[in-house]
Amino acid sequence: MAKQMLRTLSLSSSISLKIFVLVIVTFTRQLSMSHPLDPLNPIEINKTRDIILNSTIVSLPNNLTFHFVDLEEPEKNDVVFWLSTNQSFPYRKARAVVRADGETREVIVDLIGNSIISNTKYGGFGFPPFTQDEIVKASLFTKGFPAFQKSILSRGLNISLVTCIPVTAGFFGEHRRRRVLKSSCYSREGTTNFWSRPIAGITALVDVETMQMVEYVDRGQLPLPTAENTDFESSNAQDSTGAAVNGTKPNVDLNGNVVRWKNWEFHVAFNARAGVVISTASISDRAKQGPRRRVLYRGYVAETFVPYMDPTAEEYYKTYMDVGEYGFGVSASSLVPSFDCPADAVYMDGNMAGADGQAVLVSNAICVFERSTGQVSWRHTNPGVLGRLVTSGQEEVNLVVRMVATVGNYDYTIDWEFKQSGSIKMGVSLSGVLQLRAVPYANTHQIQADVYGTLVSENTVADNHDHFVTYHLDLDIDGGNNSFVKSDLVTRRANSSESPRKSYWTVVNRTVKGESDARVRLGSEPTELRFVNPSKNTSLGNQVGYKLITGPSPAYSLLLDEDYPQIRAAYTKYQVWVTPYNRSEKWPGGFYTDQSHGDDGLAVWTQRNRSIENKDIVLWYTLGFHHVPVQEDFPVMPIVSVEFELRPANFFDRNPLLS
Amino acid sequence: MAKQMLRTLSLSSSISLKIFVLVIVTFTRQLSMSHPLDPLNPIEINKTRDIILNSTIVSLPNNLTFHFVDLEEPEKNDVVFWLSTNQSFPYRKARAVVRADGETREVIVDLIGNSIISNTKYGGFGFPPFTQDEIVKASLFTKGFPAFQKSILSRGLNISLVTCIPVTAGFFGEHRRRRVLKSSCYSREGTTNFWSRPIAGITALVDVETMQMVEYVDRGQLPLPTAENTDFESSNAQDSTGAAVNGTKPNVDLNGNVVRWKNWEFHVAFNARAGVVISTASISDRAKQGPRRRVLYRGYVAETFVPYMDPTAEEYYKTYMDVGEYGFGVSASSLVPSFDCPADAVYMDGNMAGADGQAVLVSNAICVFERSTGQVSWRHTNPGVLGRLVTSGQEEVNLVVRMVATVGNYDYTIDWEFKQSGSIKMGVSLSGVLQLRAVPYANTHQIQADVYGTLVSENTVADNHDHFVTYHLDLDIDGGNNSFVKSDLVTRRANSSESPRKSYWTVVNRTVKGESDARVRLGSEPTELRFVNPSKNTSLGNQVGYKLITGPSPAYSLLLDEDYPQIRAAYTKYQVWVTPYNRSEKWPGGFYTDQSHGDDGLAVWTQRNRSIENKDIVLWYTLGFHHVPVQEDFPVMPIVSVEFELRPANFFDRNPLLS
Repeated sequence: MAKQMLRTLSLSSSISLKIFVLVIVTFTRQLSMSHPLDPLNPIEINKTRDIILNSTIVSLPNNLTFHFVDLEEPEKNDVVFWLSTNQSFPYRKARAVVRADGETREVIVDLIGNSIISNTKYGGFGFPPFTQDEIVKASLFTKGFPAFQKSILSRGLNISLVTCIPVTAGFFGEHRRRRVLKSSCYSREGTTNFWSRPIAGITALVDVETMQMVEYVDRGQLPLPTAENTDFESSNAQDSTGAAVNGTKPNVDLNGNVVRWKNWEFHVAFNARAGVVISTASISDRAKQGPRRRVLYRGYVAETFVPYMDPTAEEYYKTYMDVGEYGFGVSASSLVPSFDCPADAVYMDGNMAGADGQAVLVSNAICVFERSTGQVSWRHTNPGVLGRLVTSGQEEVNLVVRMVATVGNYDYTIDWEFKQSGSIKMGVSLSGVLQLRAVPYANTHQIQADVYGTLVSENTVADNHDHFVTYHLDLDIDGGNNSFVKSDLVTRRANSSESPRKSYWTVVNRTVKGESDARVRLGSEPTELRFVNPSKNTSLGNQVGYKLITGPSPAYSLLLDEDYPQIRAAYTKYQVWVTPYNRSEKWPGGFYTDQSHGDDGLAVWTQRNRSIENKDIVLWYTLGFHHVPVQEDFPVMPIVSVEFELRPANFFDRNPLLS
Repeated sequence: MAKQMLRTLSLSSSISLKIFVLVIVTFTRQLSMSHPLDPLNPIEINKTRDIILNSTIVSLPNNLTFHFVDLEEPEKNDVVFWLSTNQSFPYRKARAVVRADGETREVIVDLIGNSIISNTKYGGFGFPPFTQDEIVKASLFTKGFPAFQKSILSRGLNISLVTCIPVTAGFFGEHRRRRVLKSSCYSREGTTNFWSRPIAGITALVDVETMQMVEYVDRGQLPLPTAENTDFESSNAQDSTGAAVNGTKPNVDLNGNVVRWKNWEFHVAFNARAGVVISTASISDRAKQGPRRRVLYRGYVAETFVPYMDPTAEEYYKTYMDVGEYGFGVSASSLVPSFDCPADAVYMDGNMAGADGQAVLVSNAICVFERSTGQVSWRHTNPGVLGRLVTSGQEEVNLVVRMVATVGNYDYTIDWEFKQSGSIKMGVSLSGVLQLRAVPYANTHQIQADVYGTLVSENTVADNHDHFVTYHLDLDIDGGNNSFVKSDLVTRRANSSESPRKSYWTVVNRTVKGESDARVRLGSEPTELRFVNPSKNTSLGNQVGYKLITGPSPAYSLLLDEDYPQIRAAYTKYQVWVTPYNRSEKWPGGFYTDQSHGDDGLAVWTQRNRSIENKDIVLWYTLGFHHVPVQEDFPVMPIVSVEFELRPANFFDRNPLLS
């Protein structure tokens, strides 16, 4: 949920909708179009809007809403060719997903020719993300709904201190063809942390296009959790309204969206859906010397799946897919200098389109900084000349690209950490406020049945839930065509005539042929997962590659396969999938995630079992963790970090850290 | 292998043994005996020696060697009682393991009464750790052995540039009752990184007590790996000979060995075997306020198991148990200020006994510092007054206690990281030089059979191997008696009359009754492992506890159960074991690790399946990882870090970070 939206939802209903006319940026400084994957700048976003609104594709332009506007990604071959020539790129297109006349349309705009290239009606299941306007309107509509006001009155609450957060409703087999949101409402009385005061017993399903209440249920009241001890804002508040503060710049060369640091070069972009996107990452053997060698064509968080484990009538639908339903870019928090990022970080703003198609600025959406890990990147103590002990080594300093997506109550910090050793470490840190629910219990000893979570405060249960964060990682290990190799560590019986040793393990490599065998459920199997370039060897004859170092928490979804949320996020049953590159396969739960039926996405695409051997392949990796809440998570949760790493494995001829 | 030893082994044999008379510290400053678990100070070490040498327990004191001298650990009950009273502790004892007349003796000395309390002959299998003198003498003996000199001459090598590293030989069913070392020899010609120039084909088994060659085999020569590109010392050398440099002290209160920092208080000690030992760690709900609550009575790295996977005659025995065979304290590197630890770290020296029983100083053996992680410890962006967005949160600053054990070619950095959130994160970072072996191949395409590793340089294979690092964690969660609870996340079918949701997971807690069921092989099972105090509840009625957050690399040993090294390190088949506290159960592979038969240790103790429910229990956790070497690991290896965490789970009533 975006920050502007959140701000608005917290205000009382008397405030006019005018406040939602978001900062319209009229970027006048000359933007050098330096990389074909540069995100759309404000001029281009506004131009896309103008071209569409001035076209004849819809009868009543005033009713047209923009749900997603992004660069129409250029052909990969063209970008790869461009990288070797660095001449000006021949085309520039935008892709807009709009709603008009009750229909979803995908419009491709030529930004050089100033024309519409294609205009297609989307006829499948699922809907594009909600606009911020829609969410705000649904919130205000709920608060103004007479039956809701009666419910609030009957609970003795002050309607002017109620905040309603309309959230996505999921898909549970309904034959529904309308776009709906369900309002969860909270009392702000006595606390700034309204998430801790959920108003129980109410279901309010709003049709956001006709602005009608489709379903309204009041099951009666439960105690409202107390405001006491819920506030956390007082003593540790950071002012996030300040302008960008760039301190002393780290040793990083920023040229537009291209980052050059030590032996790395890569492109950083921002869009409304994925948030931060890393592209065309390459590395040279020595710092700023030697030829650049490709590693990662494109990497981003492609989806999250956050199912809560309360199956009752009021809560069952909470099975969010934040990236597809809300957008990590839309939810990006403006990073607070010297808090979210160190004092010497540099910041990049983000741009996206509002509901009216006009450019909206997200200031300090991304930061880039050097991180001293407090460790060495390598060390050894050995006797030197005359037996004097010498410790050799190097301090570890990495480069981090960071964004924070605050999706309602939850805060996801997304880090891309580049190491001089060639590793890329991807991490997600979770904090924020848990989803809380009112219950009639003040002590666990009163609880007889399953409450689907943990009593974290009087009358307050934090629900059991999962987080599955899925990365799209289009690997190009030293070139476009790669293979996925499973290196099994296999126990062998030793030859008893040679030594008294009875066993050892050895490595048995299996190149995975097709998508079906590429699905991996991580566990205790002693297998290394490698991505190699089958046509490139080191000078010693080892196959050039990277290996996947999986994270600490190999969770997979525990929902039944036939459960609706699981059908929609079927890919969360395995942590690793590998597919052949296909420009249209970007979102593992499909693009139209809201109310999706599960007929698009990773689990469906891979049913064809396409060949992935010596092909341009994409790794999809899901970081998962099951969250059984504890009292320490209340009223705001200490960070939990989950991470994984891509580490060179015979990519270099030797340790690239040595100068 | 200790630094002094390493230094010595690298020198040519012309240097007299006199150099091995290590720095004898005559500590004259008054040491306040502030904590009953304080390690022996130099005066106490020397006093222990004097009492033993002046006694009648051995016929010829000159032949007596000291293999381990440590505090004889006081009764736990006495220490816990002392913690609540803080009066002077009533007794102080030392424990010495000595060899005399071909026998091993355990001697307990009363340091207040200046007398020997007990003197027992050890009659079991296995031997105490080697002294540094023994290893140095075995090295020089090998170099002086005529057949070895002939072997070196026949290879055209310069004996004065040969370094022999005698290493432990393991146990492989031999009926041997003598203490032996096997010499691995290297050429220093053209490089300071002699590990990269192994001299192949030679087995030299030395009896260290009679200084005789028990077995000498020369299988003939293989190419000596080139010196080219093996050096790493030149440009990144750190001087580790400098004196302790204490910069600006961090916000940590050091009182003798007791560390007070934020809400934590704990004791740090050093001994020759375990290296750093954390004791009596307790935490209060608020920084320096509220009652102290116990968390960890004693924690240390209790063993490592490092089996190499080359089963051939020359290499099969390399299955090291570094802590028991060499000692992590003996192997401690003097930490290099501003490199191994940040500039504002404070340092603690270590003390241990040399072979002659006299105190030996290890300067800068441990450092303590605050670490800014570059992350937040919690954050949330929420609308505040008038809808202004406010980001609240706190930067994460942790306290780290660190040591580095350089055991020959390998460097282990051991971190204990204390968080204000109540977590303790334990991490091991591995670097150094891999074990390398000469082979006749210059390219992998010449290799037909298994070479048990990776060709990382011409004529150089780095062997496949494992590292298993086992922690002894005597948990006292809010008191002495705890239980081990497995919280299984179990999929349930939802009630279809209530909602269209078909499934969810819930938590099913099982209190583990006995040791057998407490063994856990980690994998993908959705189970939380908790350690609770069954007689303590939070004010909401939740059971007070901590949970184990396991590391990224749940490796277990892949050797056959019946293989000798596996019998000796049988505990490495499971990552988690829980035992009832027993003062004598400290080392999972037994105390007498050298040539141990596997008849002592964790796997044996637990065969009794003792009750662990509501008992004083000990968690044994093994961090493991399989290492398939890659070329990037040559000539020195980029760091690999593995970690795990103990995290409060309903230990506090709410997030303890909030002020």
